[in-house]
Amino acid sequence: QSSVTLWGRLNTSVESQKFGNNDRMVAVQNNSSRLGFRGTEDLGGGLKASFNLEHGFKSDTGTLQTFGGPSNTFWSRQANVELSGDFGTVRLGTWFPDSYFSTVDRTSNHNHDTGTSSDALFSDFAFARRTNKVGYFSPTFEGFSFIVSAHAGEGAANDSRAFDLSANYEVAGLHVAATYAQADAVGAWAKHKAFGLESDYAFGPFLVTGYYQREQVDGFKSRDIGRLSAMYTLGQSEFHVNVGGTRSGSDGTFKNGGASQWTLGYNYNLSKRTKVYGFYTSIDYKDPVQNASSDNFKSSLAVGIRHNF
Amino acid sequence: QSSVTLWGRLNTSVESQKFGNNDRMVAVQNNSSRLGFRGTEDLGGGLKASFNLEHGFKSDTGTLQTFGGPSNTFWSRQANVELSGDFGTVRLGTWFPDSYFSTVDRTSNHNHDTGTSSDALFSDFAFARRTNKVGYFSPTFEGFSFIVSAHAGEGAANDSRAFDLSANYEVAGLHVAATYAQADAVGAWAKHKAFGLESDYAFGPFLVTGYYQREQVDGFKSRDIGRLSAMYTLGQSEFHVNVGGTRSGSDGTFKNGGASQWTLGYNYNLSKRTKVYGFYTSIDYKDPVQNASSDNFKSSLAVGIRHNF
Amino acid sequence: QSSVTLWGRLNTSVESQKFGNNDRMVAVQNNSSRLGFRGTEDLGGGLKASFNLEHGFKSDTGTLQTFGGPSNTFWSRQANVELSGDFGTVRLGTWFPDSYFSTVDRTSNHNHDTGTSSDALFSDFAFARRTNKVGYFSPTFEGFSFIVSAHAGEGAANDSRAFDLSANYEVAGLHVAATYAQADAVGAWAKHKAFGLESDYAFGPFLVTGYYQREQVDGFKSRDIGRLSAMYTLGQSEFHVNVGGTRSGSDGTFKNGGASQWTLGYNYNLSKRTKVYGFYTSIDYKDPVQNASSDNFKSSLAVGIRHNF
Repeated sequence: QSSVTLWGRLNTSVESQKFGNNDRMVAVQNNSSRLGFRGTEDLGGGLKASFNLEHGFKSDTGTLQTFGGPSNTFWSRQANVELSGDFGTVRLGTWFPDSYFSTVDRTSNHNHDTGTSSDALFSDFAFARRTNKVGYFSPTFEGFSFIVSAHAGEGAANDSRAFDLSANYEVAGLHVAATYAQADAVGAWAKHKAFGLESDYAFGPFLVTGYYQREQVDGFKSRDIGRLSAMYTLGQSEFHVNVGGTRSGSDGTFKNGGASQWTLGYNYNLSKRTKVYGFYTSIDYKDPVQNASSDNFKSSLAVGIRHNF
Repeated sequence: QSSVTLWGRLNTSVESQKFGNNDRMVAVQNNSSRLGFRGTEDLGGGLKASFNLEHGFKSDTGTLQTFGGPSNTFWSRQANVELSGDFGTVRLGTWFPDSYFSTVDRTSNHNHDTGTSSDALFSDFAFARRTNKVGYFSPTFEGFSFIVSAHAGEGAANDSRAFDLSANYEVAGLHVAATYAQADAVGAWAKHKAFGLESDYAFGPFLVTGYYQREQVDGFKSRDIGRLSAMYTLGQSEFHVNVGGTRSGSDGTFKNGGASQWTLGYNYNLSKRTKVYGFYTSIDYKDPVQNASSDNFKSSLAVGIRHNF
Repeated sequence: QSSVTLWGRLNTSVESQKFGNNDRMVAVQNNSSRLGFRGTEDLGGGLKASFNLEHGFKSDTGTLQTFGGPSNTFWSRQANVELSGDFGTVRLGTWFPDSYFSTVDRTSNHNHDTGTSSDALFSDFAFARRTNKVGYFSPTFEGFSFIVSAHAGEGAANDSRAFDLSANYEVAGLHVAATYAQADAVGAWAKHKAFGLESDYAFGPFLVTGYYQREQVDGFKSRDIGRLSAMYTLGQSEFHVNVGGTRSGSDGTFKNGGASQWTLGYNYNLSKRTKVYGFYTSIDYKDPVQNASSDNFKSSLAVGIRHNF
């Protein structure tokens, strides 16, 4: 009675991982595997109703990936319904912040910002506010579009109102974005703000990308985060390099002392849907105590398979 | 190799909600969203095997809706297999009490008995005994049919045997039902019984419905619950009114002091599958302390989208 | 955009169960119900990419079946991706030990090694190490094939490296297997080893099967486990007998004192996908204290439906 699309991705690697001063160990690693359902109904007059349900799971163990939600957060990546028309799209429910899709998601291309080589430095407080949202997606006008969303705090502990804004411009291989994310103060949670700028440019076999982000947390200093990446495509092969850093910082996490991250990656596309890949990724914390702590991931040498369905 | 149907519903609203004497707050609200699989195999000779798997989730956050089960109750709404033939249907597993489908489910039409405007007064102890059931669904004979089911207690704490009975008569726009639900005593749980009568009648653009329920809990007084609703359809629009009440009561919940609930609703059907809607719903507790408590939902003004797939 | 197969099984029975010296009680029982997605992509040149996602749930209550994993282990039965070619198959992720599929899975045919009549005596420590695996499946050469897999311990508490080996030979109704499973010592967990031999033979309406297993646990004595089963098929009917035993033993569980188990079963195949069945199954523990304990399942008389989709 309906035309629903099932889609998903398994992305699993075998890695030699190092944490702090611990010995290297072998691990089987999930890289943001997922399964989703989506559908659209044409309501006539240019109006459409759509839904997105997207479930995150660990392809190494089969357990749910909950992104800070309760352990039974099943549709952790997306659970939303929307109405679209000439006016744009109004969406209700759960989805990742659009400030993310306009910045980091476009600069971490070697393995789609997943797993041990994902961007560890980006200020991602907006992820925990991805639920209980109302959003508006503008139409695209001469390459320009924007997205605004508001998260209802609903009075739960440590849950405050949040806002997310993403403005995008695209023309002939060039993409430019400006973003803003804010989560209000509540209880022990200080007000957080993050401003972002991103650009990526594709020319011939090359794709170069970069972003700059500035995070401000009330009562702390601000910090700056930046990243550059490049991809060179040769037939079915892709060669990737990705470098990021953050300066002395703001928010009481490891980022306080600053950190840098770099990754070299190689992908071999067996088809449009399936690739095998390898990468080496490394993080250095400027604080020597953090750098040595066994809680902190340091580096990994990985080979993996990513299969879309 | 099989013909399985995927189906579901997202129903999400944005509401201005009030709890007790708290300030009004904005919330994104799930209204019993779900996703299910069902299939039927023709076994020949009039015999059929069927199954139902139905999963409840919160369309605002993506988390499971577990209806009092463990946090990892995934197929919380239905998990059953059945054999059908001329003799009727024998079903094993989990499903909501048929005494519910014959009564409240037919009288709370403005938003399908979901969310903040769902029936808050009905005695629903049978819901927690929806698992571990054996049921028999009779064939329909001259408009008459009945359903009986038994819940196996299986010796778990606070889990006793339960029974559910629903008798239905339908003819030319008229439906009449009589129901009985019982959950035996176990540990601190007193024996519960509930008797119900329901009728609904559709004529022209009108649908009027009502039920009466009497709940008896061993060691407490009994209580009475009643509800009336009406719908008027005009083109793609529906106008709804729904009023219910319960008198001084039985079971140690807020219902002790009695309560009343009313809802005004408007639906605009964009298609058979999709509607947008608005409603105002309010509950008053006769006990002033309960009425002021921030734990108790008082009222909401809502707009929402319901999309079936 | 993809060709994914949905498949599954509901297997639910109504049973009169006895635990230790407790009274018999009626229960609705799940028998390893499941739902899965699988898909294959042809990559050309004999190469294929495939995935398996298989979810275990309780068909009596709708809750997840987690096999010792965290409560939110959703794809508890399988979550893996693989590349196949002339060289065989390389698989990454979660799946049950192949030493199981080569032995017990082939000898517990009356109800597919599920529910109360499943094999209670087999040494199954390898099940908890089904996650975080890398496996290699050889091609079949003149009826011979083998499977090896390694589980990465990854430093979690009580999680050590494990290995699993299964060698199989099949010809004209005869199957012979030799297996080995090992889980290394970690913390209070002693090193476990299990050797297995299996054979099954189909001739005319008969299938006879048997296995022998020897379990060795460091610091304990070893124990021996054996099982024999037979099936006779007559039209749509199957008649089953299944007998197993273990001698004084090894691993600090009830198996210490030894135990025996027997089952008589009858299946009526309504179609290739659907059967109704009945069985009586009984376990006797040689230790009289264990035999009387209400924690220990003793026997059941069951009728049920199994429906594949």
